[in-house]
Amino acid sequence: MNEPQPAPRTKPEHWRDRWYEIIFEADTPAGKLFDVVLLVAILLSVLVIMLESVPSLDEHYGQEFGYAEWFFTILFTIEYAARISCARHPLRYIVSFYGIVDLLSILPTYLMFFAPLEMQSLGVIRALRLLRAFRIFKLAHMLTEASELRRAIWASRSKITVFLATVVIAVVIEGTALYLIEGDQDSGFTSIPQSMYWAIVTMTTVGYGDIAPVTPLGKFLAAIIMILGYSLIIVPTGIVSAELAHPGGKKTPHWVTTQVCPECMKEGHDSDATFCKYCGAQL
Amino acid sequence: MNEPQPAPRTKPEHWRDRWYEIIFEADTPAGKLFDVVLLVAILLSVLVIMLESVPSLDEHYGQEFGYAEWFFTILFTIEYAARISCARHPLRYIVSFYGIVDLLSILPTYLMFFAPLEMQSLGVIRALRLLRAFRIFKLAHMLTEASELRRAIWASRSKITVFLATVVIAVVIEGTALYLIEGDQDSGFTSIPQSMYWAIVTMTTVGYGDIAPVTPLGKFLAAIIMILGYSLIIVPTGIVSAELAHPGGKKTPHWVTTQVCPECMKEGHDSDATFCKYCGAQL
Amino acid sequence: MNEPQPAPRTKPEHWRDRWYEIIFEADTPAGKLFDVVLLVAILLSVLVIMLESVPSLDEHYGQEFGYAEWFFTILFTIEYAARISCARHPLRYIVSFYGIVDLLSILPTYLMFFAPLEMQSLGVIRALRLLRAFRIFKLAHMLTEASELRRAIWASRSKITVFLATVVIAVVIEGTALYLIEGDQDSGFTSIPQSMYWAIVTMTTVGYGDIAPVTPLGKFLAAIIMILGYSLIIVPTGIVSAELAHPGGKKTPHWVTTQVCPECMKEGHDSDATFCKYCGAQL
Amino acid sequence: MNEPQPAPRTKPEHWRDRWYEIIFEADTPAGKLFDVVLLVAILLSVLVIMLESVPSLDEHYGQEFGYAEWFFTILFTIEYAARISCARHPLRYIVSFYGIVDLLSILPTYLMFFAPLEMQSLGVIRALRLLRAFRIFKLAHMLTEASELRRAIWASRSKITVFLATVVIAVVIEGTALYLIEGDQDSGFTSIPQSMYWAIVTMTTVGYGDIAPVTPLGKFLAAIIMILGYSLIIVPTGIVSAELAHPGGKKTPHWVTTQVCPECMKEGHDSDATFCKYCGAQL
Repeated sequence: MNEPQPAPRTKPEHWRDRWYEIIFEADTPAGKLFDVVLLVAILLSVLVIMLESVPSLDEHYGQEFGYAEWFFTILFTIEYAARISCARHPLRYIVSFYGIVDLLSILPTYLMFFAPLEMQSLGVIRALRLLRAFRIFKLAHMLTEASELRRAIWASRSKITVFLATVVIAVVIEGTALYLIEGDQDSGFTSIPQSMYWAIVTMTTVGYGDIAPVTPLGKFLAAIIMILGYSLIIVPTGIVSAELAHPGGKKTPHWVTTQVCPECMKEGHDSDATFCKYCGAQL
Repeated sequence: MNEPQPAPRTKPEHWRDRWYEIIFEADTPAGKLFDVVLLVAILLSVLVIMLESVPSLDEHYGQEFGYAEWFFTILFTIEYAARISCARHPLRYIVSFYGIVDLLSILPTYLMFFAPLEMQSLGVIRALRLLRAFRIFKLAHMLTEASELRRAIWASRSKITVFLATVVIAVVIEGTALYLIEGDQDSGFTSIPQSMYWAIVTMTTVGYGDIAPVTPLGKFLAAIIMILGYSLIIVPTGIVSAELAHPGGKKTPHWVTTQVCPECMKEGHDSDATFCKYCGAQL
Repeated sequence: MNEPQPAPRTKPEHWRDRWYEIIFEADTPAGKLFDVVLLVAILLSVLVIMLESVPSLDEHYGQEFGYAEWFFTILFTIEYAARISCARHPLRYIVSFYGIVDLLSILPTYLMFFAPLEMQSLGVIRALRLLRAFRIFKLAHMLTEASELRRAIWASRSKITVFLATVVIAVVIEGTALYLIEGDQDSGFTSIPQSMYWAIVTMTTVGYGDIAPVTPLGKFLAAIIMILGYSLIIVPTGIVSAELAHPGGKKTPHWVTTQVCPECMKEGHDSDATFCKYCGAQL
Repeated sequence: MNEPQPAPRTKPEHWRDRWYEIIFEADTPAGKLFDVVLLVAILLSVLVIMLESVPSLDEHYGQEFGYAEWFFTILFTIEYAARISCARHPLRYIVSFYGIVDLLSILPTYLMFFAPLEMQSLGVIRALRLLRAFRIFKLAHMLTEASELRRAIWASRSKITVFLATVVIAVVIEGTALYLIEGDQDSGFTSIPQSMYWAIVTMTTVGYGDIAPVTPLGKFLAAIIMILGYSLIIVPTGIVSAELAHPGGKKTPHWVTTQVCPECMKEGHDSDATFCKYCGAQL
């Protein structure tokens, strides 16, 4: 919104350059308008696909949905063609992530037109059109913020790995424990993967209730994992929060190496340590 | 509470000015008292409307509720009249947001008195009285804090948009996937909107359990969206937290433009970049 | 743990002073031991009361529970007597919060001994003994941390009020809306308070599922309140987080007064403003 | 990833030193490769154990699972032997935490081979193999981040204790209250531990819905604990967040001692206070 305007450039002369600026960039008023129109078209087309899947609506408005679908498909086909024709290296656009998404989101309508009888695979192909939703991310005015967020998350990736590893371990341990305790009850803990599904449902505080412990010991262990899950959310929140507040200077006071003391088997030595800080042995 | 007292002003002479200060401001003891009395009246009247909707209570205390309702309506009518009469530009008050809320919260009682037979629309009209609850926000001593919060949220609006867009994309993708996988099971995924409702219930960790996957693949995908939803809450928390801790100076180290390199189709160039940082092509 | 030791004081001479230091303070080894023993006794007695309420356990171990109960009651009675006798102003201790908690947590056992036949009130009286749990807070080594937390929460009290007011408004509006939409369905929205209970269950992401919308419009509104509740948790988290990170200097750049411009009815003027910043009228 | 490389050391001459570096450390390419191979083997073996517990899969692929199980057991046995033989003090490794985990995760397969008939204890023994999951933590590249997190959590331990104590008190009080109110209803509050289980399920916002209040008063109290649980998550989040943002300098402006004023029974005095700040009595 308040983005600093880029230094004025000489007006592009070639029609391809002008169209390039409108379609691929969002610095000019025309480019911004193009983005907004595209956003509305994407959202409307996604809405149509979703409503089409409701049996009662499809029965009454099936034909209208079909017309709308063709309208959006043709619109996106024109846009796809325009992107190819005004890109300097059309092939690079075609094989880029968004190029493939653009193609996949228009192809199903044509495919269904030529092969409408294979009902089984139809659902999956039609659903491919929903990949259009991904194109929202392409709209340029979101990129700045998204890239800052991505940077903060990327900078915290090791901590997030530790966090996820902790969650996985807790889920494995807890799932197995509940399977052993409740396996012979009729409470749904029929296998370890099933118990782990329950552990994830519980730990993330979703709590469907389709599987729930019935024995006192099972409930006690469930209470522990609930409080663990409830408290665990702190850790990543704090990490990304601290990372966003102080970007760049992630000041770890000193680096801990991965060495294990050969004498006392303890870890956590500084990288400049020559002797084990626990037993004094040479590292 | 500890708000710095404004510089003493000359006593207002006109009765309208004095009443204006009591009703519209909260700097003087009389103005504060007025606000507290109003707050209590609003809360009590909202309570009465709520209790009135309980069949067993309405049966026994219907008449008392009716009396209380009239008492509050007349009280708020007097207040509304006082506000109009002491405002310098009554019309501006009437068409302001709170002016309309004030009117809508007293009108239904009068309407119902004159047209008590239309039972169908009655519920909606009666419910309009609950707009009184909105008036709590009008009470002056909340404005300072609320405005600071609003500022922090407003400053983070682009990031919040990215966050919500991510949630929407995840819900669309996940809802469609579960619809394709569980659609022929009897587990409630009857249409894409229905599946998306399930995805929102799951991702926000509400987890009613009225719709829940039953196939192994469905459960596996559900577990992924649960962990995603559980982790995603980090992002906005961190954003607003960082914004509140360091207001004003939202220091993005450099601005990323929305340009796409015409050569390699990559994004993320600085606004002062003349050449693509990935392939060296002129932008 | 690492608390700085207070400057050495002259040994208290009087027995009352020595006992005072052991019972009421936790600076000396004897005082710390007293606290730990007391903590264990409180936890064990709470455990006994809880297990006593399980029918199958009470049947088998009822007598043992009775003995344990008398043991703890006598122990706490001795402690209560010791506290009274070594306090300089016994009456002030008796009428202090913890004095009342201490008394209420031993009284029920004696009461039940003398009046064991009134079964109805028994449950409530017995439950009073669980007030013992509150005594955990009295244990001295928690006070430092708790007081810092209390300070951070206290400093954020206005923001938390705004947050809770927002939650209440959202619950009232959403509860009423769902009552109007789903009231004639058989989905549990039988009255506004009931609908508000559902709105709280949903907004806090608890999600029991005993009440859940069934109509498309109801589900759509429910999805909105879910995302609202999921996002709203950000606000207080950010507030307290920022408050803890930067205690003391809660720098609001300027104070916004509660004045409403008499001309244009707009709010948000600075406290040193003489003219409305929107329309230029004198305030 | 970007870890500063430790100062170059003289190549270890002895074969045991070389193997030590590969197996116990992750500084060298060989050590990193060893860790990655081990990680994959651990994850695959955990996957096999989990899938084995699914009845339908065990029926078809039981033999394959058995082969895979033996493959991993022998692999981990070799690794265990290698660790013992190249550690300078094998016994210290054996009795260290990870040494025991390593042993316990290979033992069950051998035990089951020699004593396959005791079906009852089988489940528990087999489950021991899942302790392998713990070994993930041993992988060296996680140690740095984990140790920083551990430090932040450790530095906040007193605040976390206060937080957990608050949760426990709230659960005890709320559980007892609901037991007294709903105990004679058929809503599942059959004993205080059962009610406390419900209180934990509710407060952590898991909300299974297998136990839920049915009386108006019960629902009202439940709504309070929901909002409490929803708000409480703020506190620890803020704590760890602030701790991670400002490591080291946890600046408490002054230390509050645990003394209670002998005159007025108030707490919260500074450690350098000689007189009660509330009543002026000598401490």
